[in-house]
Amino acid sequence: MKIGLAQLNPTVGDLAGNAEQIRQAAHRSVSQGVRLLLTPELSLCGYPPRDLLMRRSFVDDMQQMLERLATELPAELAVLIGFAEANVTAPNQGGKPLHNSTALLLDGRIQQIFHKRLLPTYDVFDEDRYFEPGYQVNRFQLDSITFGVTVCEDLWNDEEFWGKRTYKTNPIAELNQLGVDLVVNLSASPYSVGKQRLREAMLSHSAKRYSCPIIYTNQVGGNDDLIFDGSSLGVDRQGNLVSRLPAFVSDLAVIEYDPVSANILPASVTPLPTSEAAELWSALVLGVQDYGRKCGFSKAVIGLSGGIDSSLVAAIAVAAFGPENVLGVLMPSPYSSEHSVADAAALAENLGIRTETLPIGELMQGYDTTFSDLFAGTEFGVAEENIQSRIRGSLLMAVSNKFGYLLLSTGNKSEMAVGYCTLYGDMNGGLAVIADVPKTKVYEICRWLNHPHHSLTQPSTLKTHSPIPPGVLSKPPSAELKPDQKDSDSLPSYEVLDDILERLVQRQESAAQIVQAGHEAAVVDRVIQLVSRAEFKRRQAPPVLKVTDRAFGMGWRMPIASRWSSHLPEAKLTADTSVHL
Amino acid sequence: MKIGLAQLNPTVGDLAGNAEQIRQAAHRSVSQGVRLLLTPELSLCGYPPRDLLMRRSFVDDMQQMLERLATELPAELAVLIGFAEANVTAPNQGGKPLHNSTALLLDGRIQQIFHKRLLPTYDVFDEDRYFEPGYQVNRFQLDSITFGVTVCEDLWNDEEFWGKRTYKTNPIAELNQLGVDLVVNLSASPYSVGKQRLREAMLSHSAKRYSCPIIYTNQVGGNDDLIFDGSSLGVDRQGNLVSRLPAFVSDLAVIEYDPVSANILPASVTPLPTSEAAELWSALVLGVQDYGRKCGFSKAVIGLSGGIDSSLVAAIAVAAFGPENVLGVLMPSPYSSEHSVADAAALAENLGIRTETLPIGELMQGYDTTFSDLFAGTEFGVAEENIQSRIRGSLLMAVSNKFGYLLLSTGNKSEMAVGYCTLYGDMNGGLAVIADVPKTKVYEICRWLNHPHHSLTQPSTLKTHSPIPPGVLSKPPSAELKPDQKDSDSLPSYEVLDDILERLVQRQESAAQIVQAGHEAAVVDRVIQLVSRAEFKRRQAPPVLKVTDRAFGMGWRMPIASRWSSHLPEAKLTADTSVHL
Repeated sequence: MKIGLAQLNPTVGDLAGNAEQIRQAAHRSVSQGVRLLLTPELSLCGYPPRDLLMRRSFVDDMQQMLERLATELPAELAVLIGFAEANVTAPNQGGKPLHNSTALLLDGRIQQIFHKRLLPTYDVFDEDRYFEPGYQVNRFQLDSITFGVTVCEDLWNDEEFWGKRTYKTNPIAELNQLGVDLVVNLSASPYSVGKQRLREAMLSHSAKRYSCPIIYTNQVGGNDDLIFDGSSLGVDRQGNLVSRLPAFVSDLAVIEYDPVSANILPASVTPLPTSEAAELWSALVLGVQDYGRKCGFSKAVIGLSGGIDSSLVAAIAVAAFGPENVLGVLMPSPYSSEHSVADAAALAENLGIRTETLPIGELMQGYDTTFSDLFAGTEFGVAEENIQSRIRGSLLMAVSNKFGYLLLSTGNKSEMAVGYCTLYGDMNGGLAVIADVPKTKVYEICRWLNHPHHSLTQPSTLKTHSPIPPGVLSKPPSAELKPDQKDSDSLPSYEVLDDILERLVQRQESAAQIVQAGHEAAVVDRVIQLVSRAEFKRRQAPPVLKVTDRAFGMGWRMPIASRWSSHLPEAKLTADTSVHL
Repeated sequence: MKIGLAQLNPTVGDLAGNAEQIRQAAHRSVSQGVRLLLTPELSLCGYPPRDLLMRRSFVDDMQQMLERLATELPAELAVLIGFAEANVTAPNQGGKPLHNSTALLLDGRIQQIFHKRLLPTYDVFDEDRYFEPGYQVNRFQLDSITFGVTVCEDLWNDEEFWGKRTYKTNPIAELNQLGVDLVVNLSASPYSVGKQRLREAMLSHSAKRYSCPIIYTNQVGGNDDLIFDGSSLGVDRQGNLVSRLPAFVSDLAVIEYDPVSANILPASVTPLPTSEAAELWSALVLGVQDYGRKCGFSKAVIGLSGGIDSSLVAAIAVAAFGPENVLGVLMPSPYSSEHSVADAAALAENLGIRTETLPIGELMQGYDTTFSDLFAGTEFGVAEENIQSRIRGSLLMAVSNKFGYLLLSTGNKSEMAVGYCTLYGDMNGGLAVIADVPKTKVYEICRWLNHPHHSLTQPSTLKTHSPIPPGVLSKPPSAELKPDQKDSDSLPSYEVLDDILERLVQRQESAAQIVQAGHEAAVVDRVIQLVSRAEFKRRQAPPVLKVTDRAFGMGWRMPIASRWSSHLPEAKLTADTSVHL
């Protein structure tokens, strides 16, 4: 039996558009002799629909669209479609108002419906907010083959693999007890660095443990802060990877199930990205491209400082929208070094993008004049530094408003963590492109980007070789908001900072643990305090493209007015005075 | 038996400070002959602790603090304390890592621990993210009296009262089956308009239904976006309200349980606020005061436009911090009307606050000059309007940064809903004070504030009578970003708009339902489109003080790049061009 994997890129809420994608995949599948077509989790509404699910009319529309699809899709093709379904028993028996459901469509009608059993409610996931879990084992028969149906998280609870249980039940163990020939999994599993290796190890382990092939179909595309990488796959009953679809692009592939060997047969295995940098690059390009496309933007504007962050974001924007649709704005001040301006210009030339130069010196004087009485007798400080950043932020927004460009903000994760950024200044933008990429990793991606062979290794690439000017890579990082300023005046080296942040933010280590790992106690305490103080800024940041397991944004829910920071004695302050400390 | 109700105002995460509050309440209770002291839900860490709960060291610290309290509190006093507790069975059996627990302290040790059973996971609540529910019926005996222990949501599932079930189990029904003399409830129930009447009706219904007195102890105080109103209470077994603590202030009260009548005896019943406006006023004052206090601010700055929104926010700030700690900044432009400046000055004089005037005309010219080439040949439009707003936003932030004032933003809910506000401009601030108050309600509160007898009806009041100048109340609303601009040029009347928004945002009605209620289809469609387009702005707003059941902020989780808007044919755009359409 030929089984199709439709690695689709839905737009959240676009029922008509998503249904059309399913329709097209169905027709192409039929022409390839496919009998059963798999689509991703919630393929009809796209993942994550979030509070659109609270609108009854949205759920009703979805049900109607599903019923229409049942009559429209080729009758001979079995199709599994993910949708949100009203839980009719809820008012009487209690429970959440919806199910995260999968419909089996065949012969012009909905044959069977399955409910997702394990509902992720952690990090960016809020499924318990909307959905009642399923309590039944989800199976169906087609041409004498018994399929087990699982949805994403349903397969993420193998206590052997993880060394612990997350949920009380394990759907694949129950399927195995009742007997199935093959397990399919409809997923909307967001990308994070290295996650594909984890998924493959986990699915391989489960396939082997239960001696049962697994076919996993993942969503692809960017939806706000989340990037879905696709990378759908099949593992045979021995746990071998027999098929892998490409990452970061829509695709349709076919895997053959052989009833005689009760196994799936080897098919095409797309190689994994060649490096972490290559993988991150493709993820970020897709995230920017889809955010633009799904919001109705085809052009982007970026403030070019000559620094490494804006250089990388400009390169990403060029890969996403094409050089003709990217505008770089240079906004030099009296504190800007000559090499910064030169580096920004060189970058723009390398990328082939248009630039505008809007010097900010006169506006700085305008603010000085406006404040001459009120600020008389005070020292130049954070307020004055932030004014420069806010002038630039206002100029960029004016360009965005005037010409309809999407403003991309360029701050990295290290800055966002410690608040080394100006709210309403350089934080401005519709999307924070690299705010989940630590500074040291920004350098790594840029070095990879300058490697002449990179263009062979990933899909959405630049036409130019070595786009990042050497000076951008070699000079010490500086915000250039006062004479001879360096990031290292205020912060530990980025190698030290990023390691502390990785332990603090990602691994949730305590101050004591981080010190034990070899960091100076005073530095650790200071970083913890900065991270805690910057909470109010991060709350007002644009959506952050998530590429790690713990990104700032929807999955980072910290109180602002709070007074615990891992054994730190001092109360926390949230005044903006923590900017550029 | 005397039972104490400690209506505490904890700071989230401040274990030492919160423990000290409990200690003081315990000592005061003992001197009043109290045998059992009740504190609010999670009283040791404050509600909501959010992702602080993901730090193992935080949970460990809390456990240590609880054990210390057990030895420090008066041994003869039984105390119920709320805390987050590690769920030790989770790694082996599955389930969430914590319980939302209540400890019974007595005789120098922790006698018993109870787990919250119904975990709210909707709106602003994320309890399934952290907590495993309790599966046991929670009872204890003290001096031959049997107490049932419930935590907040545990009492919110009476299918008779609500006409439907929300959860499958009903803890009070189970307690009733096993038999209890009295039910206590530890709560952290956030304020919303009119909620106290609902709570009292519900608790009265349950007390009567199960013929069992209920004593409910609620948290008080502001924590970020949430305002807890206290209003703790007791209802006797006949369902009569026998005690009500004041709203919006910390308090300690005593209710007597009489074993002979198996009932609680009448005590002090504080009257409810006299009007919705009075209630909202007190809530907002507390929200601002506590956000400031808990973040380390004692002073606030507000941009005064002479309009009704900034006038109300200034009055709230004066009630929260005192007139000597509030700075009003007037930032007139060539488009500002004379009466606006005069109204702002009159308001400041009425409130007794200091003002600074920073005209923005020259800075506007500075931006014009900067853009003279790039914007040549284009019309004055949204970009230019937003520049004015962003100049003002930058000036206010500079004052905040320079002098350590908390900037309060002044936008109302109607504006935030349709995006009639400038991101990085008038949206700037640490806290969005009235962004959950519709414009029509802003007028209502201001009219109430001008009523000479208001000062008798609520706790945190102004010294001045009729602070809002008559012109502010009577003139038509205007953003004054171009000559003779009126809000009504771009928007329906606020009476119409607020009714549509109430139906759309709060009641989740569909376009068809709203039209059926009597609104013009074209207007409804336009409002829906505006609301949908403004999502990207709201995502970057400061925390919004929540005073309704459906506020923008933590409890509003809508996708940005999305394409469903209730039967609207057009794709949604998120360009900032929707500002001031």
